Amino acid sequence: MWRFLSKPQSVESVMRDKGLAKLGDNLVNLCYSLAKSQVLGEATGEKVKDRVLARAIRATPVYKKLGRRTDAGMAADAYEAIIAYLWLTEKTNIEDMVTLVVDNLEITSETSRKKESEIASHAFQVLLESLIHLLPKKD
Amino acid sequence: MWRFLSKPQSVESVMRDKGLAKLGDNLVNLCYSLAKSQVLGEATGEKVKDRVLARAIRATPVYKKLGRRTDAGMAADAYEAIIAYLWLTEKTNIEDMVTLVVDNLEITSETSRKKESEIASHAFQVLLESLIHLLPKKD
Repeated sequence: MWRFLSKPQSVESVMRDKGLAKLGDNLVNLCYSLAKSQVLGEATGEKVKDRVLARAIRATPVYKKLGRRTDAGMAADAYEAIIAYLWLTEKTNIEDMVTLVVDNLEITSETSRKKESEIASHAFQVLLESLIHLLPKKD
Repeated sequence: MWRFLSKPQSVESVMRDKGLAKLGDNLVNLCYSLAKSQVLGEATGEKVKDRVLARAIRATPVYKKLGRRTDAGMAADAYEAIIAYLWLTEKTNIEDMVTLVVDNLEITSETSRKKESEIASHAFQVLLESLIHLLPKKD
């Protein structure tokens, strides 16, 4: 369906794809907004900060494939690109991703921003860990 | 599935729901990013400006349900809330919305920002017109 998606792609090329990262930014924001709305019982919208996603991907084995030291922006881009790629290739869907984030998002409306960031990082780490095996095997 | 979604809701209450507007903001950005990527043949991400969505909703009959003069931000919020509501209640899906926007998004990488905004407004107008009949009948 998506003519802009070149394939086959290696994990490394996905992680460095700036276009996929931009799409993934929108997708991750939507998933987190849905998960947070579900947890709080009230519709809301959020932008997920780079450092939240950077912390998440750095805690997973796939991060070493970036191959060199990266700043939070590049690490977050890699996270977003992976999520976009797996969603666009129908390896996952929004409902499943939201459910997994919800299951690990123990926040309330009283939770501080700092604490929410830490909890969100962990939830995104668990999400990525659950998806890693779906990434292309080819390097 | 979505416990934050109160129902039944009238069209008016949907259009004034600030939480749905925030979710819809993420959803509209994702749909537009996918449509633009598809049209240009290259993955990209976009934020749709309030005035693009305001122009779109003002050209449709549902706008009069806002019931008073509104600024571009409020009009765009109403557009986003409607899209979020219809998607969350599974009256539409991302693929169908993207396909409809793609069909009306005659842009190239050479199109000016101003011209793209006008074309995008019209595409979002056509999208909303195609969805209006799915809104709650109850007032």
